[in-house]
Amino acid sequence: MVKGSFVVVRPDKVLRDAVVVVEDDRIVDVGKESELKGKYNRYEVIDGKGKVVFPGLVNCHTHAAMTLFRGYADDMVLSEWLTKKIWPIEAHLKPEDVYVGTLLACLEMLKSGTTAFADMYFYMDEAAKAIVESGLRAVISHGMIELGNVEKGEKEIREAERIVKSCQGLGDGRVTTMFGPHAPYTCSPEYLQKVKEIAEKYGVGIHIHLAETKDEVNKVKEAFGIDLKNKGVIEYINELGILDSSVLAAHVVWVSEKEIKILAEKNVKVAHNPVSNLKLASGVAPVPQMLRTGVSVGLATDGAASNNCLDMFEEMKVAAIVHKAYNFDPTVVSASEILEMATTGGAKALLLEKDIGTLEIGKKADIVIVDLKKPRLTPLHNIVSHLVYAAKGDDVCTVIVDGKVLMENHVVKVLDENKVMELAQKTAEDLISRAQT
Amino acid sequence: MVKGSFVVVRPDKVLRDAVVVVEDDRIVDVGKESELKGKYNRYEVIDGKGKVVFPGLVNCHTHAAMTLFRGYADDMVLSEWLTKKIWPIEAHLKPEDVYVGTLLACLEMLKSGTTAFADMYFYMDEAAKAIVESGLRAVISHGMIELGNVEKGEKEIREAERIVKSCQGLGDGRVTTMFGPHAPYTCSPEYLQKVKEIAEKYGVGIHIHLAETKDEVNKVKEAFGIDLKNKGVIEYINELGILDSSVLAAHVVWVSEKEIKILAEKNVKVAHNPVSNLKLASGVAPVPQMLRTGVSVGLATDGAASNNCLDMFEEMKVAAIVHKAYNFDPTVVSASEILEMATTGGAKALLLEKDIGTLEIGKKADIVIVDLKKPRLTPLHNIVSHLVYAAKGDDVCTVIVDGKVLMENHVVKVLDENKVMELAQKTAEDLISRAQT
Repeated sequence: MVKGSFVVVRPDKVLRDAVVVVEDDRIVDVGKESELKGKYNRYEVIDGKGKVVFPGLVNCHTHAAMTLFRGYADDMVLSEWLTKKIWPIEAHLKPEDVYVGTLLACLEMLKSGTTAFADMYFYMDEAAKAIVESGLRAVISHGMIELGNVEKGEKEIREAERIVKSCQGLGDGRVTTMFGPHAPYTCSPEYLQKVKEIAEKYGVGIHIHLAETKDEVNKVKEAFGIDLKNKGVIEYINELGILDSSVLAAHVVWVSEKEIKILAEKNVKVAHNPVSNLKLASGVAPVPQMLRTGVSVGLATDGAASNNCLDMFEEMKVAAIVHKAYNFDPTVVSASEILEMATTGGAKALLLEKDIGTLEIGKKADIVIVDLKKPRLTPLHNIVSHLVYAAKGDDVCTVIVDGKVLMENHVVKVLDENKVMELAQKTAEDLISRAQT
Repeated sequence: MVKGSFVVVRPDKVLRDAVVVVEDDRIVDVGKESELKGKYNRYEVIDGKGKVVFPGLVNCHTHAAMTLFRGYADDMVLSEWLTKKIWPIEAHLKPEDVYVGTLLACLEMLKSGTTAFADMYFYMDEAAKAIVESGLRAVISHGMIELGNVEKGEKEIREAERIVKSCQGLGDGRVTTMFGPHAPYTCSPEYLQKVKEIAEKYGVGIHIHLAETKDEVNKVKEAFGIDLKNKGVIEYINELGILDSSVLAAHVVWVSEKEIKILAEKNVKVAHNPVSNLKLASGVAPVPQMLRTGVSVGLATDGAASNNCLDMFEEMKVAAIVHKAYNFDPTVVSASEILEMATTGGAKALLLEKDIGTLEIGKKADIVIVDLKKPRLTPLHNIVSHLVYAAKGDDVCTVIVDGKVLMENHVVKVLDENKVMELAQKTAEDLISRAQT
């Protein structure tokens, strides 16, 4: 039983002096302490007095292992950053590097209140191993780049199938899978359709980068000779039959009104990455317009190479402020909408809406506790405002995933923090020295 | 003597395994440990192994006591926010409220590595009391609103003079003063000129809000019937003879190329407030253009009512990413430029360039230490990148101001944290209940 001075059941339902009752991995009751405490007085208690208890945050698009490249190269033009810095290192990545990088990412996310994430990268069975070890929940996908090369495409499908078959359901069901065709400019239309077909066969979703940069239409033309004319990338990919409710589309910065309607109609899940989009100068996604049109939007950090953190509190704050200035309207994207994006929006994006995103009865016990006794959270006028505009990842003191306490009073119970950091430093140094010789 | 695995003497000069030698309130030596340690082996040592030592951050525009309104009202149109929420409360502010709010602000800033700030508000002798107690450095100004009312204007001048006379030099010189005419739309042109004249008489600077919102030109016309025609607010105020190197101009969002040149020529100090400008939907200041033209730019949080934190690490990160997207150029405003803005830029803004902003010999010992042993600061490839893009206020473990250790290993030595928070909560509650009855 988790007690809190405040319990955020959902962003629009905050209870004072309430409890969340957990049995095994599920929430079995939630309500005012005064009404429930007699019923569960033999349950073990985690005391959140002076604290706020809320649903674990969901980071719905990242490349976890890229923590190894954090701060390795910043302030560069995207193409140069990729070709001169990131790709030359990635060419030297070993499977165990992905394990270490993902473990570091899990540690960082866990400590800052993220309980579930969507990951796309390579050597994803190594990533799964780290996720299982950390106790977090994640949907993983092998990132597939085909570039019209049939042989490479087949190889990528075999690897993606291997990941789906070997990793789906690992860690008591905490690991699920998707197929990860990288983007419309790195996968040919026929290939995208083929991957979609296979994903349907396995009954899993598709995780893809869509409309991240303004010139993506040109990149499709360059790669495959396809002239989209006046169409955008979303229209193009919709006409290929790819879009439906099992698609997790990362970024979606450059979309027309018409395309926003398509995203809403098809119930596509959008992962909004404000920090990465700003840092890489990709632009600002039309999130207020998407929300108004009924598009399902979650929040995400992207990889640490372009962020450089994996902190959903930071992401919430930046998302809450950037659209106000961009639309010259301080009323758009309220604190409550942001908290929804970071919880229920993310749950939908991971196709785990039935299991996570709120602290309602029947949901998985993915619970975060923030200590309110901090100068920056003083005084307290409004709990949701504080979570979005004032709290930081470091205010998270306790994290529970699947009913298991992963961190309590800032002490991580599942991983040896110092060991993970030492291993990550050494791994990153080795990797760079391999790449430079 | 402060030892560090890294010492950032200036953003462009980072030493490995170095020491900063302090005698009383000043830095008397700095260099590689291997070269200096014999010379100072009897000095007391603060050990920064595995840590980075750098110049204290400078928050060059805030309204410290507004911490009391943190999270009281968000996501509102500026005029409504002011008239329905902020002003009705401010009307009930008592002097002791300002003391408490400022004390809370000092605690928050101190814990997140800010060693000096520029403050503009009311009852500034109460603010000064809190600043002296906290050990921080600040330049304070009484915020003057005249609105063409001669009597009110005179009263404000008397109060501003009282503050300058009674507070200049308090706390062993840590408190300095400026005059604070609020803005060109709340102070008539004659009044601005009069205040400027008096400030010159006292040999202190002017702290003023300039060109914060797009409609400021209209607001000047509404208030004083002055039609600026094609001129901007900066041109207008320059023609009044107000601008020179002792003016600290907050915001400066809406400025033309021509006005940017004026700011550079007159050596005006600009306080850039990215989070507040985004949250209030004011816009994005043309910082890359200002830097290119040679304008002196510092970084600031504005008040907690419109931020809602006073955390310069957050401000550095938002400033580093927002201009990239706004200019579609990921190379503008580099990590190093940001760190300069937050240190030497702020030092210039406070007119304390000779005393603070770097860790060079002869400067005041205003020193911050960040612990690098954090998942989000792992691995370490580039120290300046980490300080700007990955570190958070909570990574600050030790803070020294004027040679005095104010916080060591996260333990604040000068204030009782719990007492300050309790007092602030109670003060805010009392204030709101007074305002609501």
